[in-house]
Amino acid sequence: MPAFIFDLDGTLVDSVYQHVMAWHAALRECGFDLSIWRLHRRIGMSGGLMIRALARELDMPLDEAVIKRLSELHEQEFKRRIPSVSPLPGARELLAELRELKIPYIIATSGTTADAGPMLELLGRPDENIITREDVKRAKPDPDLFLTAAKKLHAKDVEAMVVGDSVWDMLAARRANFLGVGVLSGGYGQQELEQAGAFRVYADPEEMRRHLDELGVREE
Amino acid sequence: MPAFIFDLDGTLVDSVYQHVMAWHAALRECGFDLSIWRLHRRIGMSGGLMIRALARELDMPLDEAVIKRLSELHEQEFKRRIPSVSPLPGARELLAELRELKIPYIIATSGTTADAGPMLELLGRPDENIITREDVKRAKPDPDLFLTAAKKLHAKDVEAMVVGDSVWDMLAARRANFLGVGVLSGGYGQQELEQAGAFRVYADPEEMRRHLDELGVREE
Repeated sequence: MPAFIFDLDGTLVDSVYQHVMAWHAALRECGFDLSIWRLHRRIGMSGGLMIRALARELDMPLDEAVIKRLSELHEQEFKRRIPSVSPLPGARELLAELRELKIPYIIATSGTTADAGPMLELLGRPDENIITREDVKRAKPDPDLFLTAAKKLHAKDVEAMVVGDSVWDMLAARRANFLGVGVLSGGYGQQELEQAGAFRVYADPEEMRRHLDELGVREE
Repeated sequence: MPAFIFDLDGTLVDSVYQHVMAWHAALRECGFDLSIWRLHRRIGMSGGLMIRALARELDMPLDEAVIKRLSELHEQEFKRRIPSVSPLPGARELLAELRELKIPYIIATSGTTADAGPMLELLGRPDENIITREDVKRAKPDPDLFLTAAKKLHAKDVEAMVVGDSVWDMLAARRANFLGVGVLSGGYGQQELEQAGAFRVYADPEEMRRHLDELGVREE
């Protein structure tokens, strides 16, 4: 039987666009005017890595103080936008069904514990099993988050699958040697996820829930 | 020599994500909680058509009064977000270069004249040649906007190319029998645009400007 490692933002909760706009506002406040689609395509990496990657791409000199300030501003700007975040369709039901079928799962996010808390509340699972940025040295696209998650699941003897909405999830899954299952609910295109190695792609958690048999989940 | 018909939002100005969030806020205010990525994938259609398409997809009953209210709320919500909109990199320079080379171009948008005004200001071209939603009976993905635009350009004897960021631009271009040039700056994936018929895809106006020779534009 498989075990599932879920990304959080864009995979279980509809928060990717709010993160994108929060980064955009933070960057503008620090004088950087980046195209929003480029931020969207970097979401899901750790915040620090994302800022460094964008800085390199755009040849912007960023010192540690600015990176810290951006990170704080992003947190503030995201907090303001939390009231507009909802669970994705089928997310709560999918997790409930896995629990009922006794399929092991865990959530692994590039975000911080502080960011994740309100999202778990939205899912009605404030005490959910979760691995965050603080638990690992390197966040996605490095495989550490997913390897740590699998260890916590004792998923050595089961087939671990990573469910995520971003290219970084699929790349990190491959580096961890796990299958990647893509969802479109973070706003990437289907082919982008497939090219990054997605084994299957569903619209959102609801569609995945209705096709669990394709992923090796049996009713008993 | 070619003539160009430009989409506005996501193609020349970085306003797609603000439109997405404005629709999301408007829909929530009317009690509809739609996934944000689904709104993103419908942006670029006329607002009325988009709402009807979403209503059908989600089996939500919508009467004309609600559609009107949504449209008004979207306009309000978008207005609040205009201060965060910038021209896309290279947009002003691309239009300037076309003018210099005497290549005919025009802007054709599914938005209203009221929506388009502040965007043209951002481009430094408040009096730019433009075809809006009000000039045609049916907006994208119907070809009327682009056909009307080509007529205004007297583009009968030139090769008209449509430059846009969305699948709806590429589909409407094909229905008008024009070539479609995609830009990634609205947040669609490259393959989505290619599958919808894009002849070439560039990151943004800046990248298109640096490759005008690929589109048949000669320095003299």
